[in-house]
Amino acid sequence: MKILALLGSTRKNGNSEYLANKILEGTDHTIVSLADKDIQPIIDMRHTEEGFSPVNDDYEELVHLMLEHDVLLFATPLYWYGMSGPMKNYFDRWSQYLRDERFNLKQELAKKKAYVVITGGSSANIKGLPLVQQFNYIFEFVNMEFTDYLIGAGVRPGDILNDLPSLKKAERWNKQFRDADDL
Amino acid sequence: MKILALLGSTRKNGNSEYLANKILEGTDHTIVSLADKDIQPIIDMRHTEEGFSPVNDDYEELVHLMLEHDVLLFATPLYWYGMSGPMKNYFDRWSQYLRDERFNLKQELAKKKAYVVITGGSSANIKGLPLVQQFNYIFEFVNMEFTDYLIGAGVRPGDILNDLPSLKKAERWNKQFRDADDL
Amino acid sequence: MKILALLGSTRKNGNSEYLANKILEGTDHTIVSLADKDIQPIIDMRHTEEGFSPVNDDYEELVHLMLEHDVLLFATPLYWYGMSGPMKNYFDRWSQYLRDERFNLKQELAKKKAYVVITGGSSANIKGLPLVQQFNYIFEFVNMEFTDYLIGAGVRPGDILNDLPSLKKAERWNKQFRDADDL
Amino acid sequence: MKILALLGSTRKNGNSEYLANKILEGTDHTIVSLADKDIQPIIDMRHTEEGFSPVNDDYEELVHLMLEHDVLLFATPLYWYGMSGPMKNYFDRWSQYLRDERFNLKQELAKKKAYVVITGGSSANIKGLPLVQQFNYIFEFVNMEFTDYLIGAGVRPGDILNDLPSLKKAERWNKQFRDADDL
Repeated sequence: MKILALLGSTRKNGNSEYLANKILEGTDHTIVSLADKDIQPIIDMRHTEEGFSPVNDDYEELVHLMLEHDVLLFATPLYWYGMSGPMKNYFDRWSQYLRDERFNLKQELAKKKAYVVITGGSSANIKGLPLVQQFNYIFEFVNMEFTDYLIGAGVRPGDILNDLPSLKKAERWNKQFRDADDL
Repeated sequence: MKILALLGSTRKNGNSEYLANKILEGTDHTIVSLADKDIQPIIDMRHTEEGFSPVNDDYEELVHLMLEHDVLLFATPLYWYGMSGPMKNYFDRWSQYLRDERFNLKQELAKKKAYVVITGGSSANIKGLPLVQQFNYIFEFVNMEFTDYLIGAGVRPGDILNDLPSLKKAERWNKQFRDADDL
Repeated sequence: MKILALLGSTRKNGNSEYLANKILEGTDHTIVSLADKDIQPIIDMRHTEEGFSPVNDDYEELVHLMLEHDVLLFATPLYWYGMSGPMKNYFDRWSQYLRDERFNLKQELAKKKAYVVITGGSSANIKGLPLVQQFNYIFEFVNMEFTDYLIGAGVRPGDILNDLPSLKKAERWNKQFRDADDL
Repeated sequence: MKILALLGSTRKNGNSEYLANKILEGTDHTIVSLADKDIQPIIDMRHTEEGFSPVNDDYEELVHLMLEHDVLLFATPLYWYGMSGPMKNYFDRWSQYLRDERFNLKQELAKKKAYVVITGGSSANIKGLPLVQQFNYIFEFVNMEFTDYLIGAGVRPGDILNDLPSLKKAERWNKQFRDADDL
C-alpha cells in the first residue's frame, strides 16, 4: 500500500505536515509539498475546440505520482476556511488531466482511497466543515473512496502537540496503513 | 458607490463574467480578472519573528483597489466545488496584508459590502453551498456585510443566457447599485 | 400535475404559508398543515423481529396523499435552524412506511419532484443552508428530484410582502406549474 | 459538574444511548429520554399580543433540569439527516421558554457547555455535518459553548461496539468530566 501525501501548507514544519509525517511513519510513501512545485492555475479550455494545451510546469510529475500510489493523503492548513491556494490550483488542474488521453486518470482515481487532514484554530472543527463537504464532492466526482478525515487544532508551529485526540487519530491511521502492509 | 469586481475565472467571457458585467452596467466600477494578475501564493510567515516579506507581484495594486471601492463583487465559476485557485491565492494573501501596518485593511474591509456570484452546473445550487458558507466565514472574520449571493447555472459559454432567474437577480442588483448612486 | 403542499409552521397565515399559497394559485393542489394532523414520532422498530406496529394516527392519510400527487412542496419556517418539529416527525415516519408492503412508497417517491420553501430572519439565506443540505440528502435517499428551493425573509406575519425576490420566485414556480398543466 | 443528557432516540438501548452512558459513567448526571416525555410542538405565538400560553405537558420539568445542570449532552441518532423529531420539538419549545419571565433561560444557557453525540450509518461522518452546523447555530444563538461533537457509526443495536475511535472519544470525554469533578 503506497501512500502519496500532498501537503498544502506554504510553511515548512507546520501542524498539518506534522500530522502527515506521523500518519506516514514506517509506511511506503511519497511526500510532496505542493508549494515547492510549479503548478500553474488551470487555463479553462474545456469548451474550446482546440482543448487544453500542454503546460510547462511540474504538474505531470504529480499525475504520475497519483497513478503510482494507492492512497492519497491531503493535508492542508485551513486558510480562509478552505484548502490552501496551491492545493486548490492542484485540484483545478485535474480538469485538464481527466481529459488527457495519455492517462486514464478518472478511472485510476476511482481505485484509490482518500484521507484528509485539516489543521486550524479552535473553531476549525466547525468552520472547517464546508471544506470537508467540498472534499467529499470532489472525491464523489471521481468515485474515489473518502475513507476518513481529521481536523486538528493547530495554528502556531507545535500547537498540534497539545491536540492529543488528533495525534491519536494520526497514530490509528498509521497503524492501519502498516497493518495493511503486513497482510 | 464604487464597485470592485474580482473575477475568478481563468477563461475570458465565461458565465460568471457575463453576470458580473450585467450587475455592473451603468455603475461606477472596476473589473479585475485575477488570473491576469501575478498573485503569488501566501508564504505563511505569521508565526515567525521577521514576519512577512514584501512580495514582488501585483498584489499591492489589489489592496489599493479594495480600499478605494465600497462594494466587493466576487464572481467565480465553481471549480471543484470551490472558488478558483487564483481567487483562493488572492484571499490567502489577505493574511499578509491584514498585518501590513501601511494599510488599515481589516478596519477598511469592515466598511464594505460583499456580493458573491458563483456559476456552475445544474447541481451548483446544492454543491456550491459549502462555498457560500466559506465566503460567509471569510466575510465574518473581517466583519464585512455579506449582502447577497447568486448561484447561476452555466458551464459552457453562453449557458447563463438560459438561466432567467439568475439574469433577473443580476438586473435587480444592478438596479439597486444604480439607485444608490442616484440618492 | 398535482401538487401536495406540506406546511411545517405551527402558526396560521405565516410567511411560509403565504409563499406556498402564492406558488399554488390556480393549480391542482392539496394543502396540509402538518401541525393540524396527529403525527406520532417514529417508534424505531427497524431492527426488531416484529417490525413496525400500526400507529393509530393520521399518518396513513398523508401516505395516500403523497402517492396521489406529482409534486411535493415542503414549506417550513426555519425553527432553530431546521425544519419544524411536526415536519421532522413527518419525515421520521417515512422510515416506517418505506417498509410497509402495502405501499410501494420508495419507488413512488422516486417519480416525484420536490420543492422547498424556507422562511426565516435576514440570516436565513446563510443559516438555512444546512437545512437545504439536509433536504437534499433526504431526497437523494429516495431518488426524488430536488427541483428548487427558496429561502424567504420573514419572521413576523406579513414580513414576506417586503421580500420581492422571493415573491417573484414564487410567481415563477406558479407559472411553471400552470404552464405544465396547459400542455 | 452536573451533566444533563438529553436522548433523542425513540428506541431503547440504541447506539447513541450507549455512547451517552459511556460518557456519563461515574459522573453526577441526569439522563432524560425525550421520547418518554410529553413534549408538545411549539405553538408559535411570538408575534401575537397575548404571547405564549402555558402548555400542559412535561416541558417545564425539562427547563428546571437544564437550569440545574452545567453541561448539556445531546445524543441523537441521525434520523433523515437531522436530529430526531422529539428532540426537534424540544428545541422548538426553547422559543417559548426564552420568553418566559419566570426563568432567565437565555442567560442561564450561556453559562453551560454543550456536547453532541450523533450516531448513524457509515456516511454519517459526512451526511451528519449539516446537523453539526445546525447545532452550532443553535448554541451560538444562546451563546452556549459548543465544546465538542462525536459522530459514531451505528445503525443496528450494538453496532457502536465496533466503532473503537468513537468509544475512545466517549472515554476521553468521560475522563474529562470525572477529572473536573476531582478538582
